[in-house]
Amino acid sequence: METGRKRDGAALIALDWGTSSLRGFLMDGGGTVLEQRANAHGIQNLPQPGLPGFEQAFADLCGDWLSANAGIPVVAGGMVGSAQGWAEAPYVACPADTSTLAAHAITVDSASGTSILIAPGVTYDPPDAPPDILRGEEIQIAGVLADRPDWARDACMVLPGTHSKWVRISDGRMTRFATYMTGEVFAVLTKHSILGRLMPADAEADTGARDAAFADGVRAAQASGPGDLTHQLFAARTLGITRRMAPALLKDYLSGLLIGHEMVSGLALMGGEIHAGRPLLLIGEGALCRRYVQGLGLLGIEPTARLENTAPKGLFQFAIAAGLIAPPAGKDKHV
Amino acid sequence: METGRKRDGAALIALDWGTSSLRGFLMDGGGTVLEQRANAHGIQNLPQPGLPGFEQAFADLCGDWLSANAGIPVVAGGMVGSAQGWAEAPYVACPADTSTLAAHAITVDSASGTSILIAPGVTYDPPDAPPDILRGEEIQIAGVLADRPDWARDACMVLPGTHSKWVRISDGRMTRFATYMTGEVFAVLTKHSILGRLMPADAEADTGARDAAFADGVRAAQASGPGDLTHQLFAARTLGITRRMAPALLKDYLSGLLIGHEMVSGLALMGGEIHAGRPLLLIGEGALCRRYVQGLGLLGIEPTARLENTAPKGLFQFAIAAGLIAPPAGKDKHV
Repeated sequence: METGRKRDGAALIALDWGTSSLRGFLMDGGGTVLEQRANAHGIQNLPQPGLPGFEQAFADLCGDWLSANAGIPVVAGGMVGSAQGWAEAPYVACPADTSTLAAHAITVDSASGTSILIAPGVTYDPPDAPPDILRGEEIQIAGVLADRPDWARDACMVLPGTHSKWVRISDGRMTRFATYMTGEVFAVLTKHSILGRLMPADAEADTGARDAAFADGVRAAQASGPGDLTHQLFAARTLGITRRMAPALLKDYLSGLLIGHEMVSGLALMGGEIHAGRPLLLIGEGALCRRYVQGLGLLGIEPTARLENTAPKGLFQFAIAAGLIAPPAGKDKHV
Repeated sequence: METGRKRDGAALIALDWGTSSLRGFLMDGGGTVLEQRANAHGIQNLPQPGLPGFEQAFADLCGDWLSANAGIPVVAGGMVGSAQGWAEAPYVACPADTSTLAAHAITVDSASGTSILIAPGVTYDPPDAPPDILRGEEIQIAGVLADRPDWARDACMVLPGTHSKWVRISDGRMTRFATYMTGEVFAVLTKHSILGRLMPADAEADTGARDAAFADGVRAAQASGPGDLTHQLFAARTLGITRRMAPALLKDYLSGLLIGHEMVSGLALMGGEIHAGRPLLLIGEGALCRRYVQGLGLLGIEPTARLENTAPKGLFQFAIAAGLIAPPAGKDKHV
C-alpha cells in the first residue's frame, strides 16, 4: 500500500459531473478517497446560467480543497465535457482505453487559476447501424479495468440507468457498445402515456408479488420476436383492465418488460458467449442492479460481479494516464 | 339501389363516439349518409362531467334529428361503451362478427326518451400471452366485412393510429388481433423524452428528404432483432448529435423506426402469408396511411386496398344485425 506519498496527503481532486448532480472526491496519491461531497449542481441545474454557473458550482464544491492544497490537479468526467458542458471534449472512437481518454482530454482554466482536465466521451460507429455515444460511463469503466486484468482482457459490462449501456471490453479497451433508453422510456410511459393512468402513485405491494410481476414482464420479453415491444407494452394496460394484475404491480410488469427487452438485445449484441465463461459485470446502484440480477437470473445468467460507483477510481486512473499524478508504486495497487 | 324506403327518408342515427370526438351520421334505409356532424365532445371532453355531459352532448348533436324523425333508432360505437363511457358494454371475445356485437350490445335510455344501442368492444385472449382489447375498430371492421365476402373470408386488416390494430379475419369473423402503441409512443418520446430536444418544433424539410429519413427508420426496424427497439430509438439522438441527419428529419426517422417495428411484428403475428395472396387492408386517414403504404412497400408488400372511414357503414350493419332496421333489399347492397 506504500505509494511514495503521505498516506493522508491530498493528491487529486476528481469530479464526477453529470446532468443532475456534481460529485467531488478529494483523493490521496494511492487512490483512496479522503473526503467526498455532492450537490445538485449538475450541468442542467447550475446555480446560474452559462460559464459563471460552472465557475460558481466548482468554487462552491472545491474552494476550500483548492485553498488547502495549492497546485493540486483537478480532473473531471461526465456531461461537463459535453456540448452543453463547461467546455466540449469531443467524443473519441472505439476502440478506446484510459490512455485514449487522456490523450483526447481538454483543459479548461477556471477563474480561480486552477486548470481542470476534462475527459472525452466515446463513440461507437458500426458500419451497418447508426453511431452510438456515451459520456461518463467510460470513466466508470476505467475504474474497473485498472484493477482486474482478467476482466480487461474480455468482458461485457452492463451499466443500468436512464440510458443503460452494454459495453464489450477486449484487450483492455472498449471495443463496442450499445445504449438502451430503458429508464427514460419507463419514465415517460408511466408519467405521460395511458399506461400510467392505471398505475396508482402510492401503490403498495409486497416484494414477492412485485418480483413476480417483474418476472412476468421479463418472460414476455424473452418470448418476444422482432418488433414486438410496442405491442407488449399494451399488456401493462390490458392486464389492469381485465383485472388479471393488481394496479400496484403494473409498474413492475412494465419494468420487467423493458429491462427484459434490453437484456435480450444486449446479450445478443454485446454479450456473446456469456454462458461460456465471459465475465458479465453489473456496474451501478443497489435497487436497479437488483432488478438486473433478477432479470439475468431468469435468462439463466449470473453476473460475475456487481460493482458500486467506480467513478472515483476511474478518474484516478484517468489522472495517472494524463500524467497529472504518479502511478502508485509497485504492483500492490489499491483495490 | 332500391331499398324499400324513401331514398331521402332518415332511417338511422349512427354515432361514432370516441375519446376526443363525437361524430354523428343521419342515414337512410340503404345506408347512405344524408347528413353528418362532428364536435369535440369525446368522452374525455364532455360539455359537463358525468352522465349529464353525455346527455347534453347527445342532445346538442342530435336534438333536431330526433325531433324531425320521431322514433328513429340510434346506435353508437366506440369509447362511449367503455367503463368511462355513458354505459359500459363489456368486451366480447374473439371470434366475433357483427352479429356477436349486436347480441352483446347494451341499451342506454337517454333523458329525451330515445334509446341508444351501444356496441361492445372485443377481446382477444391467447393462451400464451396477455389479453388484448379494442373498442371502436370492430365497427370499422364491420363496415368492411359487409360488402366484401372475399375479404371477409380471409384477410389482415391494419388500422393505424395512437393504438394501431392488426386484425385477422377468417370466415367473416375477427379471430385475433394485436395492438401496437405506435402513435402514443411516438408522441410521448417526441414531447417528453430527450429525443424531442433535438427536434425543432417548426421543422421544414422537403418531402423527398422526409421520406428518405422515414425509410431509414423502417430499414433499421427490418434489420432488428428481438429487444432492439429501445437501443435503436437512441439513434434518433445520435444521428442528430453527430450531424448525420438534419434535425428537421429526426421525427421522420423515429416515425419510420416505430412504424417499421410495428409492421415487422404485425406481419409476423397477424399477417401470415400476405405475400401468397392474403389481402392486407389499410383502414384509416390519409397522411398516416400514406406512411404505412410507404413502409409496407419497403418490406415488399403492397396493400390490397386503402379504406377511409368505414365507421358509418359499420354502424349501419350493426343496426341491421341488432334488428333495428331492415337490411336493404336484394343483393344490390349499397357500397
